[in-house]
Amino acid sequence: MTDEEKEGRADTNIVYVGNKPPMNYVTAVMALLNSDEFDEVTLKARGNAISRAVDAAEITRNRFVTNAEIKSIKIGTESLDREDGRTSNVSSIEICLTVKKSNK
Amino acid sequence: MTDEEKEGRADTNIVYVGNKPPMNYVTAVMALLNSDEFDEVTLKARGNAISRAVDAAEITRNRFVTNAEIKSIKIGTESLDREDGRTSNVSSIEICLTVKKSNK
Repeated sequence: MTDEEKEGRADTNIVYVGNKPPMNYVTAVMALLNSDEFDEVTLKARGNAISRAVDAAEITRNRFVTNAEIKSIKIGTESLDREDGRTSNVSSIEICLTVKKSNK
Repeated sequence: MTDEEKEGRADTNIVYVGNKPPMNYVTAVMALLNSDEFDEVTLKARGNAISRAVDAAEITRNRFVTNAEIKSIKIGTESLDREDGRTSNVSSIEICLTVKKSNK
């Protein structure tokens, strides 16, 4: 699956953040958190999209899911194979948001 | 002190990350970590510079100060007063790097 295809997909509790407006990812996170399946969601981003992942987490937490908490934030470095055969390093971030759900 | 003036300053153990190349901030962090004064340094950034702060932390840790560890990462939202008198929200990040120094 290419990055393009993964972006914004929501069949796991991971939301890949790319170059779309932050609200696209906020709604993806909200859909997952409001589903019965997941009580935590991880936003993943690389390179320039890192800022957008932080925006999406903050907008979700401050405006829409005010009982959401940041469970963990990890940063790392990934090696990408470029078209010319060389590899380049790119920074990455994983922001895990969690909500406490009431018992049913 | 304006953001412009704060950027890259190193008289405390905070490095404000702006729009310069990541290596500028890496060298600022290294200078602080190699000084006798500090065993931890915090990278702070807002908006689009967030990605660059992650880059600077990762480059420092992977290439130059390999015994550095990430102590904590916090994200938040700050209100900025704009020139037209309105306020806008911007995401922020604080990455705290620490090194264990040997006893002298």
